[in-house]
Amino acid sequence: MNIEMIEAAAGRGRGYIRRTPLLNSPLLDAVAGRRVFVKAECLQVTGSFKFRGAWSAISALAPDVRARGIIAFSSGNHAQGVARAAQMHEVPAVIIMPADAPAQKIANTRAYGAEVVLYDRYTQSREAIGEALAAERGLTLVRPYDEPQVIAGQGTMGLEIAEQAHEAGISKADVIVCCGGGGLTSGTALALEGSALRVRPAEPAGFDDTARSLAAGRILSNDAGRSICDAIVTPEPGQLTFPILKRLAGPGLVVTDEQALRAMALAFLHLKIVIEPGGAVALAAALFNGDDIEGDTVICVASGGNVDPEMFARALDTL
Amino acid sequence: MNIEMIEAAAGRGRGYIRRTPLLNSPLLDAVAGRRVFVKAECLQVTGSFKFRGAWSAISALAPDVRARGIIAFSSGNHAQGVARAAQMHEVPAVIIMPADAPAQKIANTRAYGAEVVLYDRYTQSREAIGEALAAERGLTLVRPYDEPQVIAGQGTMGLEIAEQAHEAGISKADVIVCCGGGGLTSGTALALEGSALRVRPAEPAGFDDTARSLAAGRILSNDAGRSICDAIVTPEPGQLTFPILKRLAGPGLVVTDEQALRAMALAFLHLKIVIEPGGAVALAAALFNGDDIEGDTVICVASGGNVDPEMFARALDTL
Repeated sequence: MNIEMIEAAAGRGRGYIRRTPLLNSPLLDAVAGRRVFVKAECLQVTGSFKFRGAWSAISALAPDVRARGIIAFSSGNHAQGVARAAQMHEVPAVIIMPADAPAQKIANTRAYGAEVVLYDRYTQSREAIGEALAAERGLTLVRPYDEPQVIAGQGTMGLEIAEQAHEAGISKADVIVCCGGGGLTSGTALALEGSALRVRPAEPAGFDDTARSLAAGRILSNDAGRSICDAIVTPEPGQLTFPILKRLAGPGLVVTDEQALRAMALAFLHLKIVIEPGGAVALAAALFNGDDIEGDTVICVASGGNVDPEMFARALDTL
Repeated sequence: MNIEMIEAAAGRGRGYIRRTPLLNSPLLDAVAGRRVFVKAECLQVTGSFKFRGAWSAISALAPDVRARGIIAFSSGNHAQGVARAAQMHEVPAVIIMPADAPAQKIANTRAYGAEVVLYDRYTQSREAIGEALAAERGLTLVRPYDEPQVIAGQGTMGLEIAEQAHEAGISKADVIVCCGGGGLTSGTALALEGSALRVRPAEPAGFDDTARSLAAGRILSNDAGRSICDAIVTPEPGQLTFPILKRLAGPGLVVTDEQALRAMALAFLHLKIVIEPGGAVALAAALFNGDDIEGDTVICVASGGNVDPEMFARALDTL
């Protein structure tokens, strides 16, 4: 993994991966007590950053391999990203999704032309199902984060943040990234390596495996639990992503589900973007855990917006 | 009014006016039956295109005139745009707002540092109140649409649409613009004059003064009525804006309040942006009045996103 792979992924993605805006509002700054910039990845193709990694991985395949088709397992955002990237490459996609994923994510994955296979996330292994199907049909498995070309694709967001921070006159800042398996966080950290923009992971309480692993210096897992932040409730940091984070990332930040909902509501009010709970934890950390952040400026990644209307209404009820 | 004024306004706005993204989704295309691109002006500073005209008008004033302060009357979006543009110029602003404007718009206008004066829109004349205050304090009145530098500022959005359409490979399209007094619609029409991008106004039923005026070839007014599309319920087209529209715009499109709410919900689902009812009528026309549109591609302006949570929840209930 290196910056050249990220730049190559950006080149393959030109004209396909959307350059999402860096938004801000003085009304949000007033809540946080410092300048807050939000990288609106919810506006990415398919509504989350996952399209970047999916496009990167699929576009990097040899044409004859790609033509046999793609398989992925995902709680939803990776599913949609892979389905759409495969559709745009005009190759088949099979997506293995938990049966309790948000209805909208399952419906959208099908609408992007993929075949959806549902499994029970509390009793079945998605990895085993995925590998069996891949072998049977000659499909290429695109892993959600522990895959170099996926990390490189997510890192293209970091290249944009570096450019946009420069344009906005931001010379130094913490860059807070919503963190599940660590693909986006590690890719962004690599893209920003050597700059004064330091990446820090944000996670929901009960799924703070990355924060605890960084503090311990080794991979730790979460106990069983539930969170509304379905997009980022992974069991532990990845084998490829964690060493990158250990080398480059600052300390992790942890927020409650309630804080994520309030951040969604404030992004609705002041930025006019739709964020899902798992995509709001970075902004929640900036708005409500300011004591854990240094400096007068923070950049938060709003990593996805694929939320059911009922959950969004719950966020609006916090206003 | 000419293209040079619009280009000059764009020059004065560089680094202050946000270049908003042109978004799309295959899932929205499927609803409309053609390609739909959305110019997300709800992501503009203060949550609507009105900041463009306000910045243009205030930045064009002589410094000593500007320093005495600005006054404006508005149902909300122009209010916020003027308040924030004045605040960024470090000059005072007085905003005259209807007492029944959405609470969030009044609160935000105050949060941008302006003094808010409320009036009853059914019994008092906002023009009379504004002119009296302007004379008394030496303030400069920035009109919401019938003001050349405001029209020029709104036209900067048209310059961006021309660039973004070119980048997206769109050679010919109807550009549907949410239309109240016609400032944004006429400015955009001027910016796109001579191209294959034709501007068409969209309005809510009962406030289709521009559509009827264009059909009649002269300015016609609305009867009294109410609509949830508070941002664009003006009595009639402007004296400056209508001649421009008569010369350059295609036929008007009219949608119901219910269609505007459904368009808000689909923009939430597929684009992850927050649109207010008056900012959703262009998208509603593209999605639900397709028979009135020619060609395989349409560009819709989502002109604002300043909506109360209760109204947004009502839109989500249409899903």
